[in-house]
Amino acid sequence: MAAERPPILVTGAGGFVGQALVRALAPHHRVIATDRTNLDCAGLSSVSALPGEIDDPALVAQLTAEPLSAIIHLATIPGGAAETDPALAARINVAAPMALIDAAAAHGNAPRLLFASSIAVFGEPLPAHVDDDTLVRPMLRYGAHKAMMEEWIATLTRRGGVRGLSLRLPGIVARPMAPSGMKSAFLSNLFHAIKAGEPITLPVSAQATCWLLSRRALTGQLVAALDLKNDPASRRLNLPALRVRIGDLVAEVARQTGHEAALVGYAPDPAIEAAFGCQPPLTTFAADALGLHHDGSLAALVDHALADL
Amino acid sequence: MAAERPPILVTGAGGFVGQALVRALAPHHRVIATDRTNLDCAGLSSVSALPGEIDDPALVAQLTAEPLSAIIHLATIPGGAAETDPALAARINVAAPMALIDAAAAHGNAPRLLFASSIAVFGEPLPAHVDDDTLVRPMLRYGAHKAMMEEWIATLTRRGGVRGLSLRLPGIVARPMAPSGMKSAFLSNLFHAIKAGEPITLPVSAQATCWLLSRRALTGQLVAALDLKNDPASRRLNLPALRVRIGDLVAEVARQTGHEAALVGYAPDPAIEAAFGCQPPLTTFAADALGLHHDGSLAALVDHALADL
Repeated sequence: MAAERPPILVTGAGGFVGQALVRALAPHHRVIATDRTNLDCAGLSSVSALPGEIDDPALVAQLTAEPLSAIIHLATIPGGAAETDPALAARINVAAPMALIDAAAAHGNAPRLLFASSIAVFGEPLPAHVDDDTLVRPMLRYGAHKAMMEEWIATLTRRGGVRGLSLRLPGIVARPMAPSGMKSAFLSNLFHAIKAGEPITLPVSAQATCWLLSRRALTGQLVAALDLKNDPASRRLNLPALRVRIGDLVAEVARQTGHEAALVGYAPDPAIEAAFGCQPPLTTFAADALGLHHDGSLAALVDHALADL
Repeated sequence: MAAERPPILVTGAGGFVGQALVRALAPHHRVIATDRTNLDCAGLSSVSALPGEIDDPALVAQLTAEPLSAIIHLATIPGGAAETDPALAARINVAAPMALIDAAAAHGNAPRLLFASSIAVFGEPLPAHVDDDTLVRPMLRYGAHKAMMEEWIATLTRRGGVRGLSLRLPGIVARPMAPSGMKSAFLSNLFHAIKAGEPITLPVSAQATCWLLSRRALTGQLVAALDLKNDPASRRLNLPALRVRIGDLVAEVARQTGHEAALVGYAPDPAIEAAFGCQPPLTTFAADALGLHHDGSLAALVDHALADL
């Protein structure tokens, strides 16, 4: 029966989150997976891999040739990389998804659309508390691109073209060590270093506070968000995340891996501390009420993150 | 002395507003005027006309070859035309101005940037009262494009790349009869018809209420906005406009042109009435405090509008 439903398109499917999401969806849905690289769908008979550049009109036509039941749009040029190549970032983060969504909506079936937005929409400095009513005020190009797409998707949803929801992702750990173009890469790198018993110096202080989520918890949130019946009127949702003190995170990773927390040094870079290490208390009543959950505890977060290494 | 300052770039300079703006600036500034068509700068020795498509990288490079003291970005694909050609509209209304602004900002002189936004950011239905705190909720693609660019320009301004201000234009009268791609064209067409003594049927009721501004008043606001010292923190400004009942407008145009208001019939189209004929009381404290003014009275608005016919 599931096979009769139109497929779900996952963009950025070769990325850290995309790979896990495709594997979570595959048993229950037909999936079209696209990315520019790293597409590995071996053994997943319900998944069609269509590699290519998301700003290539020919690829977009292929991806949207048949009606889609949902689109989960993860493809993006992240914060650091967007600052390095503004033109590429504007094309991939704004123009390409606008074209993709229009092409998918043209079938007239109002597909579900989950858009991976980011807490970068809030910019810096953050207010003393962030909740569902906090206004956007991006400072990074990346954050502004996300805020722009949130507005676009809310408009298309009011018009009935899609059933859109923008999900603001916090820091996801632990990503691979490969260069990701992310200014927040240190959050994942500390897991790799401690597990390997190697020293690492972090560009934030031990007192820095960050909103974190494991890939496993995020994947669960994305799958649950596919079927939400009561999206907020704003069509935007701050995702539940654990607020973690970096010193505590280091201690827990050390404990679970049997290494010494003393492997980690701290050489705070004021810009990085301001951008990623001053995250205040976060309440996510709207997402909580819809049944979305973070990892639950620091121990569980670290356990889930280490399982991905 | 004025000739020593970097020039002001005006995009959409061949349009109804752009033509008047260039003539208002020319005595006091060097001006670079660009548009895809209708560029007429005859007799204006301080104006350089550089015709072309605003999404052409070669034109953008030409326009931004030297530092600019200001950019007044009027070029746009308006509401009706944007619905007809979404891909063109996304390119001209979002991608092109993003690239143009980046190119201009690259000189590092933080140019003044006035962006012609629109009351279309508020969508429909409008709340019972619109003021400086009213949240955006566009329904037209055009309105969403403007809201997206407002966000982008506010971000670039926080970063120091430009000194940006988005000005939300109300209905501007009386535009030429030529097809403008505007769903609100009837607001201008009624001036032409009554002046010519020809019958016209309006797609709204006599009770419809609209926010209107003459080109003369708008040009004054744009010139004043170039030198504002206290932009609002949001970097957005609702422009002062006269709220006019259409029946009263028709009567005043008839009075000033010596024709009969009975030339005008009313066949309200619910969609047009909802989009353009239900504009509630508008307060613009922020713009008022900055010294921006609308036409002042219905008689003055009509007088100014008729002067442009």
